[in-house]
Amino acid sequence: MTTAEPLTLYTAKVCPYAQRTEIALAEAQVPYTRYEIDLQNKPEWYAPQVNPASKVPAIAYGGPKVPADTPSPQSTKLAESLILVEFIADLFPSAHLLPADPVTRAKARFFIDTFSNKFSPAYFGFQARGDSPEALYKAIETLQGLLAGEGKWAVGDEFTIADVAIAPFLARLELALSNDLGGFEVGEGKKLWETLQTDEKYAPLRSYWARLKERKSVKDTFYADHVLALFNKRLATWRAPK
Amino acid sequence: MTTAEPLTLYTAKVCPYAQRTEIALAEAQVPYTRYEIDLQNKPEWYAPQVNPASKVPAIAYGGPKVPADTPSPQSTKLAESLILVEFIADLFPSAHLLPADPVTRAKARFFIDTFSNKFSPAYFGFQARGDSPEALYKAIETLQGLLAGEGKWAVGDEFTIADVAIAPFLARLELALSNDLGGFEVGEGKKLWETLQTDEKYAPLRSYWARLKERKSVKDTFYADHVLALFNKRLATWRAPK
Repeated sequence: MTTAEPLTLYTAKVCPYAQRTEIALAEAQVPYTRYEIDLQNKPEWYAPQVNPASKVPAIAYGGPKVPADTPSPQSTKLAESLILVEFIADLFPSAHLLPADPVTRAKARFFIDTFSNKFSPAYFGFQARGDSPEALYKAIETLQGLLAGEGKWAVGDEFTIADVAIAPFLARLELALSNDLGGFEVGEGKKLWETLQTDEKYAPLRSYWARLKERKSVKDTFYADHVLALFNKRLATWRAPK
Repeated sequence: MTTAEPLTLYTAKVCPYAQRTEIALAEAQVPYTRYEIDLQNKPEWYAPQVNPASKVPAIAYGGPKVPADTPSPQSTKLAESLILVEFIADLFPSAHLLPADPVTRAKARFFIDTFSNKFSPAYFGFQARGDSPEALYKAIETLQGLLAGEGKWAVGDEFTIADVAIAPFLARLELALSNDLGGFEVGEGKKLWETLQTDEKYAPLRSYWARLKERKSVKDTFYADHVLALFNKRLATWRAPK
């Protein structure tokens, strides 16, 4: 599968939103230019020439072939991770990231919506701010209620945008909690991770994540050492008295 | 255009999110069952049998033909207005609500994202809470920067999901401000509306809204008298000392 148009992805190894787009592009098996943005020290041209919001991920699509750090005004600039994942799915339909059936497609989007509005805030609350884990447990149960079931991907037999959207966050959850890195009391992260690994109640998420983390596109785009180093660096901020 | 499967829309005249789905279905020109949910007094069966979040809009799709107030467990229940609009667009492709070109499609979704994350909070802040209008003026300028231009719909020559998503909110903005109904100081709503009507800076939004409000699907699904009566009822709450 190839695209006639040049595609440059502006991304950052640490960013879960950016990883979504890297997974989608890996699934599509298309050549593209990967450009790492240093989020602590963004190039001056990035906001004015690529993404006014100055965030990753962003895509420059089409226009002449130019170096990533001198983007052409003739290419289309697109942003927002979920929009980019759908864009990649639309551009490369043979990757089958969008279910063909409108009902399953709506379920994939509803899964993502639930993840974004329930799971994400609960996870960041616990991991970065040290809030009670109750909201996170509850969000996991809600999400489990939507999972298609044993041996399947999020919403069925095919790996879809729903799996793409959640994978980077579960990867970071495992890394942060199993290494006890976060704004919670020392030991609380490991304890929660242990519960997720052993409690029968969380078996659906556990089995889903075990398969998801072995997916090539997910493995190839998760830079664990890089993310771990950054988590260690952030620890002091997370643990700072509120 | 017809669908083989029964489709029931659970909706409410007052709700802008619900109107999005009514516009999309009107554009698709398909027969469906419209069921009005009284948001102040929801039927007991609604949350357990249709939408656990107990919100409108929701769709019951497929399964046997049953009365809307006795939903079948065999139908698929779907929720969240933007997901439903995309579902309707997927189900009835001849309505052309989704641009065929992936780039334009991504732009339509980015327009909606900007609307949801910039315009909506600024509008509700001013209209319901009486916050300063500055954020709303700024959001309008941002949105205008994305509009395809004179004589066009939000992202081009075709009426798309982007137009569907924004129309119900602009309709309510006009109704609330031109009638000076909101949490702002008396006269401030009319003043802002007047500025939007006369200031050259807002000509792009003005001309876009003038065309959008005349679109049959938008007109037919905006129950102005009903919404106005409710705004008048809410006025005391909006004007209550903070």
